[in-house]
Amino acid sequence: MSETREQILEEIKIQGDLVRKLKAAKETKERIDEEVAHLLALKAKLGDGPATPQKFTLKTPKGTRDYSPQQMMLRQGVLDKIIAVFKKHGGEAIDTPVFELKEVLTGKYGEDSKLIYDLKDQGGEILSLRYDLTVPLARYLAMSKISTLKRYHIAKVYRRDNPAMTRGRYREFYQCDFDIAGTFDPMLPDAECVKIVSEVLDTLDIGEYVIKINHRQLLDGMFEACGVPADKFRTICSAVDKLDKSPWNDVRKEMIEEKGLDASAADKIGEYVRLNGGIELVSQLLADEKLKAVPSAVKGLENMQLLLKYCDAMGLSPKISFDLSLARGLDYYTGVIYECVLKAEPKIVQNGADAVEEQGAVGSVAGGGRYDNLVGMFDPKGKQVPCVGVSIGVERIFSVLEAKNVAAGIKTRTNDVEVYVASAHKGLHEKRLSILNSLWDQGIKAEHSYKLNPKLLVQLQYCEENQIPFAVVFGDSELTKGIVKLREVKTRKEDEVPLTELGNEIKKRLRN
Amino acid sequence: MSETREQILEEIKIQGDLVRKLKAAKETKERIDEEVAHLLALKAKLGDGPATPQKFTLKTPKGTRDYSPQQMMLRQGVLDKIIAVFKKHGGEAIDTPVFELKEVLTGKYGEDSKLIYDLKDQGGEILSLRYDLTVPLARYLAMSKISTLKRYHIAKVYRRDNPAMTRGRYREFYQCDFDIAGTFDPMLPDAECVKIVSEVLDTLDIGEYVIKINHRQLLDGMFEACGVPADKFRTICSAVDKLDKSPWNDVRKEMIEEKGLDASAADKIGEYVRLNGGIELVSQLLADEKLKAVPSAVKGLENMQLLLKYCDAMGLSPKISFDLSLARGLDYYTGVIYECVLKAEPKIVQNGADAVEEQGAVGSVAGGGRYDNLVGMFDPKGKQVPCVGVSIGVERIFSVLEAKNVAAGIKTRTNDVEVYVASAHKGLHEKRLSILNSLWDQGIKAEHSYKLNPKLLVQLQYCEENQIPFAVVFGDSELTKGIVKLREVKTRKEDEVPLTELGNEIKKRLRN
Repeated sequence: MSETREQILEEIKIQGDLVRKLKAAKETKERIDEEVAHLLALKAKLGDGPATPQKFTLKTPKGTRDYSPQQMMLRQGVLDKIIAVFKKHGGEAIDTPVFELKEVLTGKYGEDSKLIYDLKDQGGEILSLRYDLTVPLARYLAMSKISTLKRYHIAKVYRRDNPAMTRGRYREFYQCDFDIAGTFDPMLPDAECVKIVSEVLDTLDIGEYVIKINHRQLLDGMFEACGVPADKFRTICSAVDKLDKSPWNDVRKEMIEEKGLDASAADKIGEYVRLNGGIELVSQLLADEKLKAVPSAVKGLENMQLLLKYCDAMGLSPKISFDLSLARGLDYYTGVIYECVLKAEPKIVQNGADAVEEQGAVGSVAGGGRYDNLVGMFDPKGKQVPCVGVSIGVERIFSVLEAKNVAAGIKTRTNDVEVYVASAHKGLHEKRLSILNSLWDQGIKAEHSYKLNPKLLVQLQYCEENQIPFAVVFGDSELTKGIVKLREVKTRKEDEVPLTELGNEIKKRLRN
Repeated sequence: MSETREQILEEIKIQGDLVRKLKAAKETKERIDEEVAHLLALKAKLGDGPATPQKFTLKTPKGTRDYSPQQMMLRQGVLDKIIAVFKKHGGEAIDTPVFELKEVLTGKYGEDSKLIYDLKDQGGEILSLRYDLTVPLARYLAMSKISTLKRYHIAKVYRRDNPAMTRGRYREFYQCDFDIAGTFDPMLPDAECVKIVSEVLDTLDIGEYVIKINHRQLLDGMFEACGVPADKFRTICSAVDKLDKSPWNDVRKEMIEEKGLDASAADKIGEYVRLNGGIELVSQLLADEKLKAVPSAVKGLENMQLLLKYCDAMGLSPKISFDLSLARGLDYYTGVIYECVLKAEPKIVQNGADAVEEQGAVGSVAGGGRYDNLVGMFDPKGKQVPCVGVSIGVERIFSVLEAKNVAAGIKTRTNDVEVYVASAHKGLHEKRLSILNSLWDQGIKAEHSYKLNPKLLVQLQYCEENQIPFAVVFGDSELTKGIVKLREVKTRKEDEVPLTELGNEIKKRLRN
């Protein structure tokens, strides 16, 4: 099913016309570059060999980036802390393939399905890159016939979003999910997920936050009470979801003009969605004439009551807010929904074109909810496994912490080297190797210059620049006495140490 | 550029015919299933919505698999040990996107380029999944203008291999690479890579191994000395690479019949490639009349001499073998090449269709080499950054260790829970929550039943089945006294502990 040369030539012609048109219309550089890249890619299809020198922009794909050692060090530190919290709650790790059969993802993401990356049909199965970690979990549970699991999964997901439109977002990014699957009593696992989010945010120490909580059954009941027709529940829910970014008047307009809702119904919704509070708000709403006539609203409110009580038993009350404007975009939620928002938002400064993070855009750092019907969509007999979970928005957390480090002028080390083995004069490289070898075999992190005869000053400067705590320095005069000098890099203090004792002495000093 | 309905219907017709033909020809079930899956995928394209219940095989894509908590525990343990070795040698982590511009991968993998996964052209750039971690590293170095780096990278790579043909292999698998980039004196970084492979294999304790070493310049010189035309060096090198799986006679036949080499040249190669040994073999070959007339052969041998000397200084001599039959498949190597092979090969037993690992297939567990020209292929001015590195074959190592665990009847825990909080009778779930909350806040890994009123026996059985070391047991009678029972699960011994002291007492016991 590969294209013929003629087809490609035709595509090149069309694409060339498009580029010329964009240039004539003085479109943005980004837009033009993108289409030029596509044009070059099409041209590359014609001659597939390495014969001609490659001419293409040296870049990562749009919306993706490399992580430098500096960034990886920060990231690994953050992920280690998050994993520690997940493990504290009995989490077990799983992993799934980066792509799934396309059908697995079909019909799970509503309007966002257009953002799914498809693989080329190279014969065989039709595949797509995963869009989140929740649908693969549901597929895994159904396929493995597992009915109880507390699992965490940290991996990259893929969305063909337009990074220019939503600044600070990427097309490839980490998700960091904890989910509890199984048939249990109401709200006990749901409350633990709130606790987990709170612990993660506390351990990362990135500032004040509030965990907003709502319930899909209450939302549906509220829509019913306001006179929204049942077939408009999901689309009106999507509109409510935009309240974190848009003012009520815009959302109201969308409901009425785009989604065809009666103005009176929209106004009734408007009264509810401005409400937020604690357990007293639940009582107030349970007494609300309109809501108490709708069974699903009452059910949602009773669940909220239970959840808030459990959260209180875990000391979470000061950190949570029952918020009727919280809706969450995804179709598959069936019960409680969460979103954790940073209160004081640090200003994010990044390099390059997408430099300025829009104010407020960094707000949400975790989200999730209950999805009781997703696993059943995969089970051949429709057997359900109820699930609830949270996803930590690690990319935003990384951005916040990177900005903090930059602001504080912190330069983190990118490796853990403990000792540098330096030679004082020529001809000692094999001796360096044998000293290094002995240190490595004793589990000490050590390196040296890969030059035969490096200058001593250069070697010592390297230690200082790279914040290596110790240097071993030796020349023939030391070797004949069976000793080396052990130098503390920061203080430049040197002591003579017998070569046979070197490993132990370094270990002793590192412990202190 | 998306297909029209008519195009899809045409494709379905063609695919349907193919399936019928395969069935008539009684092709293997696997082959037929694959084409049926493709047919269903095409049919799914017609109706894209979630309206009809989904009908598709519940599976991961061909050549991929999920990792269960059991497998993840083993994997994480292995990776942690490998990372510790990489860090001991000053390694810094980087990460790159899972896909690259297609042009980045073009012309790097020789005959294997057909195995690259392409993404669908959804407008914008033409992308492919990474095939290894080496080409992305070279692209990263050129793009970031970095000329010195010791980096490790652990990530999945993608190859559209046929898993049925090469059993035990997958289309998605982990690579685990350490590379040293920079302009240094000969063989110092190259020798450290050998040391790293040796340390990894030693720390994983998976049995006896030998690290085979050869040199591309020596191979080229040897080909020249044997009368191979220069334009056939790479293709003859690919043939030599098959010697680890095929007997010499088959390789000889390929050289002569498929690749058009003179029989006399092939026979001369045959004499060299049976040689292996240590530093004495280098001296022998340096005295070889045919080789010493070829400058690149002499250069390669001198390099080998230096490498073997450095390896000896690090105590590696017993573990390495200078082996003239080692060729490595990839085009980009320019100097030393390595391959580490397990000596005694444990028998691998896996579940499912690909149950029996072919004898000898598990042999190679690491490989690598020097590639001095790859970065220059990406630099706009052709600036080179010489590199050398090794890749640890972690998938094979996982298989070997999984088989060992199965053979030894070892059941590894899949989580780290330290304490289970159990209630002795009804109505204690909120008290459980507050005890758990206090334990979590003290950093103790704890869980409980998500049932309101679980039976005590069920709770205690859960602890024993899941090898949780401690259980906290309490009822109203304990609570009124301000105590709980702390139970050692293995011995079933219980002690009364004041609730206020519980965290400290558990921590004390865990330390012992």
